[in-house]
Amino acid sequence: MKKAKIPQTTITRLPVYLRALVMLANKGEQITSSHGLAQHAGTNAAQLRKDLSYLGEFGTRGVGYDVDQLINEVSKWLGLLRDRTVVIVGLGRLGGALVGYQGFSQKGFKVVGAFDRDPAIVGTVVDGLTVNHINDLESIVKDTQGGVDIGIIATQAPSAQGVANRMVDAGVKAIINFAPITIDVPAGVVLRQVDLSVELQILSYYLQKR
Amino acid sequence: MKKAKIPQTTITRLPVYLRALVMLANKGEQITSSHGLAQHAGTNAAQLRKDLSYLGEFGTRGVGYDVDQLINEVSKWLGLLRDRTVVIVGLGRLGGALVGYQGFSQKGFKVVGAFDRDPAIVGTVVDGLTVNHINDLESIVKDTQGGVDIGIIATQAPSAQGVANRMVDAGVKAIINFAPITIDVPAGVVLRQVDLSVELQILSYYLQKR
Repeated sequence: MKKAKIPQTTITRLPVYLRALVMLANKGEQITSSHGLAQHAGTNAAQLRKDLSYLGEFGTRGVGYDVDQLINEVSKWLGLLRDRTVVIVGLGRLGGALVGYQGFSQKGFKVVGAFDRDPAIVGTVVDGLTVNHINDLESIVKDTQGGVDIGIIATQAPSAQGVANRMVDAGVKAIINFAPITIDVPAGVVLRQVDLSVELQILSYYLQKR
Repeated sequence: MKKAKIPQTTITRLPVYLRALVMLANKGEQITSSHGLAQHAGTNAAQLRKDLSYLGEFGTRGVGYDVDQLINEVSKWLGLLRDRTVVIVGLGRLGGALVGYQGFSQKGFKVVGAFDRDPAIVGTVVDGLTVNHINDLESIVKDTQGGVDIGIIATQAPSAQGVANRMVDAGVKAIINFAPITIDVPAGVVLRQVDLSVELQILSYYLQKR
């Protein structure tokens, strides 16, 4: 597969297109227009066509896109045709909710380790997974066959940077930070900062505009 | 304030710029360059300048942006200079985590009602808020002075559409759906579908590309 330079904004929309495509497939749709697919994905047809043009030549003018073919292509570009291993640190309410989030396991993300430092949480079982002490992070990452792809940080804000450092030292290649604080990682490690209040702020814009 | 037509993709980046700006302000920075700010926000300087150009004329060529001024302008555009009222339905683990999420209250989003239908959850207290039965949704929304701005759905997938319908009928103007299923709302109601696995899929792309 050609590894073209795809803009970051396009990459962030690919999972949204994938969700819309899967929804259409579940409804029994076999063909979709760029207009129809864009609407389900919350964008416009011109943007959608431009985004998909980075992946290759799809769709037939005047006919549309083959839903199953496009699901397969987008999945391939997103690297979803193989399973990914995940560790999660911070098993408070948010961390517990993330471990149990149906969307993760359904999409091939397998949680191989859960960690906390609170004696009241270490040793408990969350969704079939026993919570380990954070001090076992390094050995468990090392013992995971194929390594650990993704680390999720769901700690309180003051602990987040220290946890990120330990994940990087242990060899975790990509990190999602849900703690409400900005953290740094070395070049070569992929980082996404997720701020759940971003969605509320976007709605606030549209409420003001009405 | 002029209500220009701002592209949706720009709107989704404004909260990210705001977070980066607040982080810089907390570090004591008074001026930032478009390059520096873009880097903290995970985009590039050209995109940042284009996005901010929709809001007006900011920054001085060769000097940069005044951090505090830009925080104020972006907050104004996002409608964050007034508080927003929020109700949340579904007080399982994710809902409980959202009620307690520090980022919400810090940013002026006030949860005025929490609802569930599980007898084991109704009546319990989550972050100082007593969980009501879902059947009290309509009366509590009606009794909230100024109405309810935003409804958060954190139920299981099969319940999400029904809850959305009830929120809309009760007069809620904007909805965020965290349930892993696509729902419909009438025109005029603002909807954001949040799929937490989107972030994992974006990381998967970058892991594959390495």
